[in-house]
Amino acid sequence: MTTSKSEIKETSSFEKTFAGKRVLITGGLGFIGSNIAHALVEMGAEVTVLDALLPLYGGNEFNVADIKNKIKVVIGDIRDEKIVNEVVAGQDFIFNLAAQVSYIDSINEPFLDLDINCLGHLRVLEAARKFAPQTKILFSSSRLAYGRIMTTPVDESHPTNPVSMYGVHKLTAEKYYRIYFETYGLKSAVIRIPNPYGPRQQMKHNKYSIVGWFIRQALEGKDITIFGDGKQERDYLYIDDIVSAFLKVASSDKTNGEIYNIGTHERVCFVDMVDAILAEISTGKKTHIPWPKNYERNETGNYIADTRKIKRAVGWEATVSLKSGITETVEYFKDNKEQYWK
Amino acid sequence: MTTSKSEIKETSSFEKTFAGKRVLITGGLGFIGSNIAHALVEMGAEVTVLDALLPLYGGNEFNVADIKNKIKVVIGDIRDEKIVNEVVAGQDFIFNLAAQVSYIDSINEPFLDLDINCLGHLRVLEAARKFAPQTKILFSSSRLAYGRIMTTPVDESHPTNPVSMYGVHKLTAEKYYRIYFETYGLKSAVIRIPNPYGPRQQMKHNKYSIVGWFIRQALEGKDITIFGDGKQERDYLYIDDIVSAFLKVASSDKTNGEIYNIGTHERVCFVDMVDAILAEISTGKKTHIPWPKNYERNETGNYIADTRKIKRAVGWEATVSLKSGITETVEYFKDNKEQYWK
Repeated sequence: MTTSKSEIKETSSFEKTFAGKRVLITGGLGFIGSNIAHALVEMGAEVTVLDALLPLYGGNEFNVADIKNKIKVVIGDIRDEKIVNEVVAGQDFIFNLAAQVSYIDSINEPFLDLDINCLGHLRVLEAARKFAPQTKILFSSSRLAYGRIMTTPVDESHPTNPVSMYGVHKLTAEKYYRIYFETYGLKSAVIRIPNPYGPRQQMKHNKYSIVGWFIRQALEGKDITIFGDGKQERDYLYIDDIVSAFLKVASSDKTNGEIYNIGTHERVCFVDMVDAILAEISTGKKTHIPWPKNYERNETGNYIADTRKIKRAVGWEATVSLKSGITETVEYFKDNKEQYWK
Repeated sequence: MTTSKSEIKETSSFEKTFAGKRVLITGGLGFIGSNIAHALVEMGAEVTVLDALLPLYGGNEFNVADIKNKIKVVIGDIRDEKIVNEVVAGQDFIFNLAAQVSYIDSINEPFLDLDINCLGHLRVLEAARKFAPQTKILFSSSRLAYGRIMTTPVDESHPTNPVSMYGVHKLTAEKYYRIYFETYGLKSAVIRIPNPYGPRQQMKHNKYSIVGWFIRQALEGKDITIFGDGKQERDYLYIDDIVSAFLKVASSDKTNGEIYNIGTHERVCFVDMVDAILAEISTGKKTHIPWPKNYERNETGNYIADTRKIKRAVGWEATVSLKSGITETVEYFKDNKEQYWK
């Protein structure tokens, strides 16, 4: 990849923002958290990672194996007041990515989802207000905060009527972050993530991170199962673009108290994503089956993000195409499958 | 008060809906709950009241003293799974009014507010889904779910950006009720209450139910303190109108999964409400002081409800003017002050 002058300028501006700074990443052994950790270590930040390593979630010590001597890893839960107060104290930046991540599980276990995704985030915010009042804190929300989609592309003022408890609690936490900014001046910002994919995503089950799961199916020579015709449009966003969005939003004070969509602008159908995987992995096959009842109820309709707000604020745009993102991802998992299949 | 033919017709239609029916009222020793209990006893319903009698809230055994032999009272908390499952089982209607009620306290004690106003309501919904799947369940939300008001009158599609944790958690619970309707077919409806007042309101402190508190100040010959010029517009709704809204919405299946504003259409300023009290209680006086900092931050701007949706759905409209509502309320508290001052 050639590096343009503007990219060099951006990189140095990031290095200036994060070099020597204390940064906490909750959920930092997970997919997005560990990728942010890698970028920050490269920029010379002093990184602490908090992760509960809950069995069904994305936390994986292998995700930071290559930087483990350059970061501090604390195994602990964001619901644990004592640990949270300790790790939050004095941080310059907090990326709050710890979460219950499955919208399917959120319906079967609503109390667990409430506990992690609301109470846990409230713990971190309370700790930040008391022990790191100057910090900038980012929250990873989800396109599922919108619920049923009325019009695309979806901008940040689209109605928010989630169809799962996961979506409701993401929305609730978003509002916590804004209130803590308005009430206490705690610098916060929220990013609504569409369908993320890329290296270091969990591959243990198919409850979320569908791209990763399909790559695994294909690599194992199994059928990739598509519900219905697979024509629903999704916004698949590659991890490098997600990381740069978090870092850019974190490094600007213009973003305080704000919510931002991120996404690609590519109109991609579910089945196109599957075809992109199969183009990389010739052993894979696809098959169509009817929508299971529980899933169809949670189908929100086509989703494409309107990302003009984040572009205006911090100049962020997605740069990785689905094709090259899938190529990178397949490459990574071919090399490291034994670390993710278990 | 004269009774028109249409009012008689309404009353008999309600009697048909609730006569002989099993009804649970959580928070049923509080202001709105106990008033609904009185109406339902009159209509021949089999009423169970669940109330935790938490010290700072509105629960007051005197509120049902005159009907205590006609209802079943259970002292217990909506967060208690065992009690909730027991009292919910087999109910035909549930009025879920138990709550942490102070938006001021919700900022100082966000975990308590989360616990009662989200987890507690989730407990009741889970119990209803499992043990009373045919029930109709109503939730008392608040105008504070809207947060800062952008345009008046406020209809149900107005943006919802609460400025207090209380408002956030009311909004969260609203979304639970809709999801339980959409996912499980549990018949639910939500009512957004503006500023309620009337007999049986708590009078122990001034953290909420400001009309009641001012009546107490006036009856005790103390100054009524107004922040700023008191020109902010509010929608003060008398309890009889609130009770009829809950009963009408509960008795129609058209309301399932819906949210309704209620309000008066009267454009009343805060200071007009004070003057209405002083017109009844000649010993009272008013005085203006500057806005305290914490309160101004939570001032949402003028609020007047657009109530066309509930009128279209079930024909509800407010019928009691501020003047006659205040007269009734003052009368009640003059007669019963020793039961509410403590």
